[in-house]
Amino acid sequence: MPQISLSRRLRRTPFSEGVEAAGVKGYTVYNRMLLPTVFESVEADYRHLKSHVQVWDVSCERQVELRGPDAARLMQMLTPRDLRGMLPGQCYYVPIVDETGGMLNDPVAVKLSDDRWWISIADSDLLLWVKGIANGYRLDVLVDEPDVSPLAVQGPKADELMSRVFGDRVRDIRFFKFDMFEFQGRDLAVARSGYSKQGGFEIYVEGSEIGMPLWNALFAAGEDLQVRAGCPNLIERIEGGLLSYGNDMTDDNTPHECGLGKFCNTHTAIGCIGRDALLRVAKEGPVQQLRPIAIEGDAVPPCDRPWPVFADGKRVGQVTSAAWSPDFATNVSIGMLRLSHWDAGTIVEVETPDGMRRATVQEKFWI
Amino acid sequence: MPQISLSRRLRRTPFSEGVEAAGVKGYTVYNRMLLPTVFESVEADYRHLKSHVQVWDVSCERQVELRGPDAARLMQMLTPRDLRGMLPGQCYYVPIVDETGGMLNDPVAVKLSDDRWWISIADSDLLLWVKGIANGYRLDVLVDEPDVSPLAVQGPKADELMSRVFGDRVRDIRFFKFDMFEFQGRDLAVARSGYSKQGGFEIYVEGSEIGMPLWNALFAAGEDLQVRAGCPNLIERIEGGLLSYGNDMTDDNTPHECGLGKFCNTHTAIGCIGRDALLRVAKEGPVQQLRPIAIEGDAVPPCDRPWPVFADGKRVGQVTSAAWSPDFATNVSIGMLRLSHWDAGTIVEVETPDGMRRATVQEKFWI
Repeated sequence: MPQISLSRRLRRTPFSEGVEAAGVKGYTVYNRMLLPTVFESVEADYRHLKSHVQVWDVSCERQVELRGPDAARLMQMLTPRDLRGMLPGQCYYVPIVDETGGMLNDPVAVKLSDDRWWISIADSDLLLWVKGIANGYRLDVLVDEPDVSPLAVQGPKADELMSRVFGDRVRDIRFFKFDMFEFQGRDLAVARSGYSKQGGFEIYVEGSEIGMPLWNALFAAGEDLQVRAGCPNLIERIEGGLLSYGNDMTDDNTPHECGLGKFCNTHTAIGCIGRDALLRVAKEGPVQQLRPIAIEGDAVPPCDRPWPVFADGKRVGQVTSAAWSPDFATNVSIGMLRLSHWDAGTIVEVETPDGMRRATVQEKFWI
Repeated sequence: MPQISLSRRLRRTPFSEGVEAAGVKGYTVYNRMLLPTVFESVEADYRHLKSHVQVWDVSCERQVELRGPDAARLMQMLTPRDLRGMLPGQCYYVPIVDETGGMLNDPVAVKLSDDRWWISIADSDLLLWVKGIANGYRLDVLVDEPDVSPLAVQGPKADELMSRVFGDRVRDIRFFKFDMFEFQGRDLAVARSGYSKQGGFEIYVEGSEIGMPLWNALFAAGEDLQVRAGCPNLIERIEGGLLSYGNDMTDDNTPHECGLGKFCNTHTAIGCIGRDALLRVAKEGPVQQLRPIAIEGDAVPPCDRPWPVFADGKRVGQVTSAAWSPDFATNVSIGMLRLSHWDAGTIVEVETPDGMRRATVQEKFWI
């Protein structure tokens, strides 16, 4: 496997020192920032994540901050999800679409107040789209990337570890809500969220200089909990059906194709730039959609490009994420399938680099 | 050095198969696409580039295509360089700035015709800014990323190799001009350009499926020229003063700080979004600027973060790219220095991970 060549352009994070000391073995690049991918091994990291608690450097979930009288109006222009009922203290998963209805990002919107929002982004320079729209429509809003780096605490012991550092009040945070907590004199937003199905929190660390003090405090408090440095785990996130922008979807896809129709209120999301383009697909449904697919045979190789999916010799879709699952003793995968072949139980063939494999469309993800 | 974890999100290119067969040892990620960084070793690749000819997969220089009646108007909105005299067949290096005059990218604009342009981008999703501006100003223009992947042929024997594949007419292409050439029934734009000072061409390969046929044709034709797979070389590009967006500059910097004032016609670039913000700096000059700096001592470690620069104990700038140059027997580097310390001959101190090093501001780059 080739090495990664480091340069300033692949940005370090406030926690990089801790990540290196923990023996990171692999990186990917996400929003032009380093994101760890493996510490011990993907499988050992997976086992540990499901049993204990991990601290993840997910600084690469950069924030796009909107501030000003037009912040809420701009936020609604970006997404077909109706935001009118959203309150400060809430987090919403929001598909972001362009004027054609194509997905530009699938971030979490964090409403700090009526005129201040963070968009916690997946891997694309959403900042540039938002700045362009704000400028073109001459909106009264400031748009920039603040010095905020999320640190995730994930795993079954996450509540215990977090309560030792932030106090028992963290246990009261409900899913996709956040509250403010003090650490070394700073107020930090802490949300119950994260890119795993094992439960946990994301701390929005505002101010790089408290990054390592917080990292160290979490490790000091969690020694007996077997806390470790971790990272989003390929196997666990596929099992849990957590999508990855750039892997499972691109700007070619509508939210409905990605199974995100439930996060779209296309009819009432007045002002959304992609609304017109999505009205018809929202009514009639998409012709292809993401599905969980179990691929038979031994562990598949890394899925570094779309794998074509066939049925009766005809192409019916593609697989874009895949990994061997020790817990489910099959290859778990995510693929985009045509309407004609997306029903649970449908048998298809997946063309992997190792050859054709039999595969079965699943009713639901492995959770 | 950690490995890179491959996934669909880090896009492969039409030439990846050739790159892998040539034994690529390192990658970076550029515009969410794989960019090779080393084949034999950075120093061996450097020596070969200066002596022979290399074929580079620079597909990551993605194109933003503008098509339609407002294409030229939109192009001028993006840059403070006056484009009125630009003719079809020309390539212009164009700083792209936001409304604050901050650099969003430093691409090459390729004028195909009055209503069709390509912007051959550095590492940021410029597509999203351009789409946002086009949408916000309701311009009559289509903006997208076409299936165009540049392949560079660089080195002193580039003319010889290219003429064997495209005919002797390639020798007549002047610097930063392009012309159309036929390969296997396709018309391809070939420009005399590239990210080295050794001379050469960039072929805008339109249509992924002819990527490997072209790659193979170049290698078959150049065996006796010792043609090899190569990539932008860290040492050579610093020696030559070729800037790297994300390394040497970010959206914090104006074009003038980057020494790109000569590509700005701020007074006459009517319509440029960042024009007002740049008028004053264009007149009075910047307070900091990029400079070549020679760093004393043994080979420096990789510059993976800004290295602070000091004089008399006060911070006066930072170094953002650095490498040992075998040909000039010094560490060559690029740094942003305050007005008070940017004169050639000024002695400064650079804080590297190995400790403080004495360094001297240079009159010009090492060319």
